[in-house]
Amino acid sequence: MKYASLYKNTLLTDILPFWEQHSLDLVDGGYYTCLDQTGKVYDTDKFTWLQARQVWQFSMLYNQVERRESWLKNAKLGADFIKNNARDSNGNFYFSMTKEGKPLVQPYNIFSDCFAAMAFAQYAKASGNNEFREIAKATYLNILSRKDNPKGIYEKGTGERNLKNFALPMILSNLVLELSDVLEPEEIERTLNYSVNEVMEVFLQKDSGLIYENVMQDGSLHNSFDGRLINPGHGIEAMWFMIDIGVRKNDQKLIQRASDTIIRILEYGWDKEFGGIFYFMDAKGHPPQQLEHDQKLWWVHLETLVALTKAYEQNPSSTIAHWYQKVHDYTWSHFPDLEHGEWFGYLNRKGEPLSTLKGGKWKGCFHVPRAMYQCWKSFEKIESK
Amino acid sequence: MKYASLYKNTLLTDILPFWEQHSLDLVDGGYYTCLDQTGKVYDTDKFTWLQARQVWQFSMLYNQVERRESWLKNAKLGADFIKNNARDSNGNFYFSMTKEGKPLVQPYNIFSDCFAAMAFAQYAKASGNNEFREIAKATYLNILSRKDNPKGIYEKGTGERNLKNFALPMILSNLVLELSDVLEPEEIERTLNYSVNEVMEVFLQKDSGLIYENVMQDGSLHNSFDGRLINPGHGIEAMWFMIDIGVRKNDQKLIQRASDTIIRILEYGWDKEFGGIFYFMDAKGHPPQQLEHDQKLWWVHLETLVALTKAYEQNPSSTIAHWYQKVHDYTWSHFPDLEHGEWFGYLNRKGEPLSTLKGGKWKGCFHVPRAMYQCWKSFEKIESK
Repeated sequence: MKYASLYKNTLLTDILPFWEQHSLDLVDGGYYTCLDQTGKVYDTDKFTWLQARQVWQFSMLYNQVERRESWLKNAKLGADFIKNNARDSNGNFYFSMTKEGKPLVQPYNIFSDCFAAMAFAQYAKASGNNEFREIAKATYLNILSRKDNPKGIYEKGTGERNLKNFALPMILSNLVLELSDVLEPEEIERTLNYSVNEVMEVFLQKDSGLIYENVMQDGSLHNSFDGRLINPGHGIEAMWFMIDIGVRKNDQKLIQRASDTIIRILEYGWDKEFGGIFYFMDAKGHPPQQLEHDQKLWWVHLETLVALTKAYEQNPSSTIAHWYQKVHDYTWSHFPDLEHGEWFGYLNRKGEPLSTLKGGKWKGCFHVPRAMYQCWKSFEKIESK
Repeated sequence: MKYASLYKNTLLTDILPFWEQHSLDLVDGGYYTCLDQTGKVYDTDKFTWLQARQVWQFSMLYNQVERRESWLKNAKLGADFIKNNARDSNGNFYFSMTKEGKPLVQPYNIFSDCFAAMAFAQYAKASGNNEFREIAKATYLNILSRKDNPKGIYEKGTGERNLKNFALPMILSNLVLELSDVLEPEEIERTLNYSVNEVMEVFLQKDSGLIYENVMQDGSLHNSFDGRLINPGHGIEAMWFMIDIGVRKNDQKLIQRASDTIIRILEYGWDKEFGGIFYFMDAKGHPPQQLEHDQKLWWVHLETLVALTKAYEQNPSSTIAHWYQKVHDYTWSHFPDLEHGEWFGYLNRKGEPLSTLKGGKWKGCFHVPRAMYQCWKSFEKIESK
């Protein structure tokens, strides 16, 4: 498997130029993320988490790849926009804003805050501006304080069925590593231990080897739509966060369990008829509630490539190599738009684009470039061995 | 076009027996609506609006078709369950409950209340029980009082972009006719005038002839995801409510405008490549936000058959006949499950079942039997002319 140059070239000559050319709002600051197949802006609303992800992306490249001034400038465009517009008086982040930065949708979703904290930490490092470091830290502490009731007053559950959701411990496990320059070592350790325990001991099920999206507060499973929900891409993405933590802690057991879980989820989530990985599944095989359940999404496949590459980098095996090749062939033959650049986001079950958008409310400048960077770096190490 | 007996027989020998056999919860009351292809219960949660719709369905049949004791008994099973469990202390209806009737999801959605009011009014008429008549009336008044902020404390918008939604005036236009035994004539008149004006003068656009799902408070259009959203099935369903009102008021102009609008929306929403009517569209042709936008849904096609049949009953024309036949052929060849009875709910763009469920969180005992009844009765009149 020799792919370092494929990922590097795609990142630097296809993906980044697409966003640099089409997404910058040089009038009001921040980014357009609603881009059609050719890159034309079709909607100007600004979704905080996508704004933050793009700030993070350009800052990270500036910090890790090359101190290119244009990347820092692009990051600043979004960082200032979020800082000036996205926070309410309690330090919570609005879900979305108008082009001009007026708040549109209230802070009902804590993931806006998570990505803002990541963005500010990377941007503080890139720019050397301590103000962003302080906001990153304050935002992180605010996330922790909201952790047990992340939706706050917008929570619609009565408390009768007290499920907890996988997304928050999963994202915390990545967020805390992202904030390693900002937080005290004891704080990092505490949150890492909490997240790893939640992900690997609570949400990962010992008998099935699968990760459930929702479990009861005591860790037991619940036989309901939410309680049966499996999101294979989500579980696999979390496993590469676990591998990163395993490397940091030199915890071979954690790395091995994460690698095994990637393969287990792939065996379960792979569409044996048409190829690709399902978006949602019901653990008991019942009809999923989500009408989009059988679609093939760009981020699911990219995060799987990252996870397999990292797993292979740590412990090469023919099983991982086999699955890497299978997912690689599907992904690279279905998602890239050879005509207009960047990648399609949404395919139907049979692999045909359902929508030709390059960005929207949920797809921005994040999963494609992050995965390109991660796979590039892992393959560099694999290929130099 | 001779179809009265097709609709009647399907209703009485296929659809109703399916729900009578599989959906009744004789232990805790109410209905199971999550039924797999064969009718087996796969989830026991109870969604207020689907509970109410089934109460309405059996009560209506008892009132309109035949005073069959089993139908009244079935209606009572759900009516008592809703009355005893679904209301909070302010008279708002929970969105969902457990099998036993414990509240699960708060009253964030006013459509639960709308269908509860309809159910109680029909059931009061069927049972002669005045208590239900009183709750229907109180619920109706509560809906009116919540009309300008239907989501209450669960509203996530900041007020910056003050869109109003088509669903409430649309449903009120049907609800008020359903409550004609319960409300004062002046109240009926007032709400009918309000609804007809909102639907035909505000949401229906004079230039395009299309109905938008969301417009600004002053009736202007807004160039945003929500502001560009078209739901062809929704608009067409509203047009048969308008025809019913036109018949009641002997307003030929309203009937004609509604009929013309049905055809206009159909021309716009019909999938010229694979047949069937799209679920969601963007008025400017941009990528819709909804990942399920190109799916073909049972209710969209059934409500279109009802609308075309009613339009033809009032003013026969070759254009309506042509469209009726086209939609009839698509619908009857794709949705009925010839093996296990009842109808599939969700097809992919090409017309293949995406899910084989007969009921779930959004599909219950409502659109199929209501459409069967409406088309049966209209075709009886058409065929006897």
